[in-house]
Amino acid sequence: MGSPHIVIAGGGFAGFAAAGSLRGSDVQVTLIDTRNYFLFQPLLYQVASGDLHAEAVATPIRRILRGKNQRFLLGTLTGFDFDRNRVLLEDGTEVSYDRLIVSLGSTTKFAESKNLEKNAWHLKGIPEAENLRSRILLALERASSCPDPKETDSWLTFVIVGGGPTGVEFTCGLLELFRVLVPRDYPEISYGKIKVCLLQGGDSLLPDFPPSLQGYAKQRVESLGGVVRFHTHVMDYDGMKISLSSGETVLARTLVWAAGVSAPFLASRLPGEKDPSGRVWVNDRLQIPGHPEIYVLGDMARTKDGVSPQVAPFAIQTGQYAAQMILASFNLSPVPPPFLYRNPGNMVVLGRYDAICYFPWRKVMCRGPGAWILWLGLHLAKILGPRNRLLALVDWGQDYLFRSATMEIIRSFQTSDISQNNGGGKELAKDPE
Amino acid sequence: MGSPHIVIAGGGFAGFAAAGSLRGSDVQVTLIDTRNYFLFQPLLYQVASGDLHAEAVATPIRRILRGKNQRFLLGTLTGFDFDRNRVLLEDGTEVSYDRLIVSLGSTTKFAESKNLEKNAWHLKGIPEAENLRSRILLALERASSCPDPKETDSWLTFVIVGGGPTGVEFTCGLLELFRVLVPRDYPEISYGKIKVCLLQGGDSLLPDFPPSLQGYAKQRVESLGGVVRFHTHVMDYDGMKISLSSGETVLARTLVWAAGVSAPFLASRLPGEKDPSGRVWVNDRLQIPGHPEIYVLGDMARTKDGVSPQVAPFAIQTGQYAAQMILASFNLSPVPPPFLYRNPGNMVVLGRYDAICYFPWRKVMCRGPGAWILWLGLHLAKILGPRNRLLALVDWGQDYLFRSATMEIIRSFQTSDISQNNGGGKELAKDPE
Repeated sequence: MGSPHIVIAGGGFAGFAAAGSLRGSDVQVTLIDTRNYFLFQPLLYQVASGDLHAEAVATPIRRILRGKNQRFLLGTLTGFDFDRNRVLLEDGTEVSYDRLIVSLGSTTKFAESKNLEKNAWHLKGIPEAENLRSRILLALERASSCPDPKETDSWLTFVIVGGGPTGVEFTCGLLELFRVLVPRDYPEISYGKIKVCLLQGGDSLLPDFPPSLQGYAKQRVESLGGVVRFHTHVMDYDGMKISLSSGETVLARTLVWAAGVSAPFLASRLPGEKDPSGRVWVNDRLQIPGHPEIYVLGDMARTKDGVSPQVAPFAIQTGQYAAQMILASFNLSPVPPPFLYRNPGNMVVLGRYDAICYFPWRKVMCRGPGAWILWLGLHLAKILGPRNRLLALVDWGQDYLFRSATMEIIRSFQTSDISQNNGGGKELAKDPE
Repeated sequence: MGSPHIVIAGGGFAGFAAAGSLRGSDVQVTLIDTRNYFLFQPLLYQVASGDLHAEAVATPIRRILRGKNQRFLLGTLTGFDFDRNRVLLEDGTEVSYDRLIVSLGSTTKFAESKNLEKNAWHLKGIPEAENLRSRILLALERASSCPDPKETDSWLTFVIVGGGPTGVEFTCGLLELFRVLVPRDYPEISYGKIKVCLLQGGDSLLPDFPPSLQGYAKQRVESLGGVVRFHTHVMDYDGMKISLSSGETVLARTLVWAAGVSAPFLASRLPGEKDPSGRVWVNDRLQIPGHPEIYVLGDMARTKDGVSPQVAPFAIQTGQYAAQMILASFNLSPVPPPFLYRNPGNMVVLGRYDAICYFPWRKVMCRGPGAWILWLGLHLAKILGPRNRLLALVDWGQDYLFRSATMEIIRSFQTSDISQNNGGGKELAKDPE
C-alpha cells in the first residue's frame, strides 16, 4: 500500500494551512477546489472599491501547492459517500480518502426576502467584487447623464447593510473612492449629492471591538461623509426602493449586502449536528463526533467552547491543527493537546491612513495612522507570494501617494445589454454534445 | 449661439486622436462609447496569453478626456437622424451635432459557418480576452485530470486561425505560456503532448512584411514548438471537431479565430457606398461624399487611394486629420491638404526577446532581440498614462526576468456551471420595472 491519502475539500485559509503543514510528510494530499486560485478574502472589498485589481488578491493554487506529495484537482464537490470513504464530484469523478478535511468556507446569507437576494450586491468572490465595482462606476455614469433629478438621486445613493468588518471597511473605501474620483472625473455630479448609508441591526458597529474603538469607527465613517444608522433592518428591496424595519423607504439603485454568512449547502450532507447557520459542531480535535477521519475547519466549524470566529486566523489555526492530528493518527507526529483558538487580534482599516487594532490577550488597542501602518505591514506580509505583494504595493502606492483611485474599468458588459455580459456568452467549460 | 458641437462616436485610436486634437479649441466635444475605457488593442492578445492583466491595457476615458470642452457619454449608439443632425442612443437619448465623427472600429468576422461563430474564441475586447485565457487554463486543468487519452489530446490541442499580426503574436505568446507554465505547474501533463497549430489561408504569414521576415516569423513559431499550415481554411467547428478545407478533421477543444474583421453593423446605416466588408468609402477629406459634416475614420474607413490598413497608426492619423478639417470648417485653423496616410512601419512581437520590424518608407527591416527592444520601447511609450506603463512593466518584468507566466486566474465561472458565470448573474445595468 502507498502512503495514506488526505483529501482537502476547499482551498481557503484553512485548507491551505493544512496543505502547508502536510507538505513533505509521508502522506499524499489532494486539494479540491472550484477555483484555481487562493483568494485573500480579507482584501477582496478593495477590489470592489477600486483600490486593488483582482490579480493582487488571488494566487494560482498550483503556484502554492508545489510539494511532491501535493496535487490539485479543479472540481465541484457535490456529495460524499461515507461508507466507501469517497467524495463525489460534479463530473462523476469519485476520489477516495483515508482522512478528509472539509473547509469549504461560507456563503452569503441574505435575509428572508427573495427580492433582496435577487437585487442586492455582495462581496464573496472576485466576479462579485468586480461586478460591484462596475456597478458603482455605472451608477456615476448614469447620474452624469440622467435628466430626472429623482432618478439621479437614486443612482447616487449607496446603502451598505451590515456593520461588521467588511461593511465598515467597504463603506470607508467607497467614501474614499468618491472623494477622489467624483470631483476629478465627474464634473456633471455635485459631490454633495452622493449619499452613502451604513445600516446596522444592533446598536454599535464592529461587535468584536471595545466601545471606544466602535465609536471611533463610527466617527470616521461620518467624517468621510457617510451616514450610520443603528437598529435598522432591511425588509425588502426591489432594486430601487428599500423598505426599512422602521417603516421608512429609501430610494437607492445600489444596495450592498454585508450582513451575514451561512455554511455552504454541503455542510448539510455531513454527519453530526449543525448550529442554526448550518455550521458543523466538531469535538476538541476538530473532528465530527463519531467520525474521527473527518475534520471540519474554518468558517464551517463550530467548536464546543463557542469561540469559533469566521476569520482568517481561526481558519489557519484549525488547518494547522488538523494536519498535526492527521500525522499523529499515522504515527508520523506526536498527538497534540486539544484545539484551543488563540486570537491574535482584530484589525479594521478605515480608509486612507486610518485603522483600528485590538489585541484582546493583552487588552491593547490602537487607532489612527500608527494602526494603519501596522495593518499595512501585516497585510503585505500575509499576502501570499512576492508577485501579489508587488502588485498590491503598486496599486496602493498610486492610490495613496498620488491620490488617484485606480481601477475604474466597467468590465464585462455593454451598458444595458446584459446578453453581452460574458463576452459573447460562450460557455467556458461546457463540452459539446 | 454657443460653440459648434462635435460628436465623436467611438473612443478607439481614431476617436481619441480626434478628441485630443480638438482639446482646448473653440468647439464642444462629446465622445460617446459603450465602454468607459480606452483599450490599447494591439496588446490585448497579451491579456489572453497571460502576460498582462486587463488594467494594464485599458485606461478610463474620463482620465484622458479632461479638456474643459470635452465631455464623455457612456451609451450605445443605435442609429442616426441625418435630417436633424442627431445620433440616437439605446436609452432613447438623442444627441445633436454640428459635425459627426464615426469611429466605431471593427468587429470579428467569422467565416460563413454559424457553428464556428458559436464555438470559436476570439480576441476583440477585454471580456473575450479574459475568457479565452480562462479557457486555456481550464483546458490544462481538464487535461490534468482526464482519464481518457483521446479526450486529453483534444484538450491539449489549440488551433489558431489567421496568420496576420494578431494570430502570429498570440500563437507565440501561447507557446511561451505553455513552455513556462506546464513543466512547472502541471506535472500531470507531458509537455510534448501539447499541440499548437496556426492555420493560414494564403501561402505566407504576415502579408504586410517582406518574404524574408515572413519566413523568419514562421521559423520562430516552429522553433517554439508550434505548427504552421498554409492554404488551409476552416469549414466547420462543433466545439470539438474542426473540419478543414483539405477534408481532414482535427480534434481540438479550443479554436481561436483571428482571421478577419468586418465593419460594425452601424456602418450600414451611414449614407454612401460600402466595400464588401462593410467599410465606408470616404473622399480624400475623410468625409462621406455628399455629407461634408460626417467623417468616417479608422477601421471603418476606406480611402480612395486604397491604402487604408486597419491598424492604430492609420486610425490615429485619420483622427488628427478630421480634427483639422473640422476646425478649418469653422475657420479656426487653415484647411489641410488632402489626407495621405504615412505608414510609420510594422512590428510584430514573436514571444520573449524576439520581434520583426519593417519600415517601408526606408526599406529598413530588423529582427531578433534588437527589434524586440525597439518594440518594447515604442509600446511602453505608446501605452497611455504612467499607471498603465507601470503595471505593464511590473507584469513584463516578472514575466521575462523571472520567467514566470503571470495571470493564471480562471475568472468568472465555477468549472462547468455557466449559470454562475457572472457572479450570480445579476444584471449590472438593468433598471427595475
